[in-house]
Amino acid sequence: MGIFTYDIKSFDDLFVHQLQDIYYAENQIVKALPDMISKATDPQLKAGFEKHLTETRGQIDRLEQVFKQHGVDIQGTDCPAIDGIIKEANDTASEVAENDVLDAALIAAAQAVEHYEISRYGTLIAWAEQLGRPDCATLLRQNLDEEKATDESLSALALQKVNRKAA
Amino acid sequence: MGIFTYDIKSFDDLFVHQLQDIYYAENQIVKALPDMISKATDPQLKAGFEKHLTETRGQIDRLEQVFKQHGVDIQGTDCPAIDGIIKEANDTASEVAENDVLDAALIAAAQAVEHYEISRYGTLIAWAEQLGRPDCATLLRQNLDEEKATDESLSALALQKVNRKAA
Repeated sequence: MGIFTYDIKSFDDLFVHQLQDIYYAENQIVKALPDMISKATDPQLKAGFEKHLTETRGQIDRLEQVFKQHGVDIQGTDCPAIDGIIKEANDTASEVAENDVLDAALIAAAQAVEHYEISRYGTLIAWAEQLGRPDCATLLRQNLDEEKATDESLSALALQKVNRKAA
Repeated sequence: MGIFTYDIKSFDDLFVHQLQDIYYAENQIVKALPDMISKATDPQLKAGFEKHLTETRGQIDRLEQVFKQHGVDIQGTDCPAIDGIIKEANDTASEVAENDVLDAALIAAAQAVEHYEISRYGTLIAWAEQLGRPDCATLLRQNLDEEKATDESLSALALQKVNRKAA
């Protein structure tokens, strides 16, 4: 899709575009997580990222089911948002001199990713329901619930341990 | 700050870096909102964006107070995340052919911005408290509460009206 081509002609087109956007984003997250796992020092954080990598692969499978249920090709579209969020995570991490501080920075970066996804899945679920696709909404809600749980567990780890070690 | 310069040597440095990041982001949002206001068709959405523009200016003032309270210079730092989120909003909006569908797309874009900020303020509040700066945390929480309220009112507007008109 290109600028000024007006490829989004209907609400359904917008839904599919957003689906392609999050599909690209999840695939970029799968590529970014191994680096975050290798940078994390705290064993609980490392394990949390590893668990989320497995979960993200499952989320991609669910998105592929949504594409199929909706009768459209499985494909991604450019998502400058997730590219920017991941670039910012890498830029900041590369500037941190100390491991405990880096763990705190990695949690913040991961939570920015989670919140992007929470926003996108929230939108997609509302749009799927409006379009009369409760089957798609159910799958998307499973992804949303996992992102929210990941975000909450990162908050708990930061508050209970990582921020204290970093300070 | 540059890559591989390891400018973030302490948890306090990380807090200041994150503060500079959200300060840049809020300033970019002030620049982006007038275009979203002009593109919005629904009068409630237009009014909501206008209200949020005023709020965002107040949030920048609060961030400047936080810089002063913490005894550091008021300045921004590159934030590829917000640049990417805003670019994605503009790219998607430029592809939408129909006004009601565009309103739905604008709400989705605004909620991605809100969630980025919710994530950053959540992190900053936790870090401020860990660093023994409840005075900074109080100001940051005011910004967070406004972002959450904006996000909720956008969800309500989407569900009650905009998505139905778009579909």
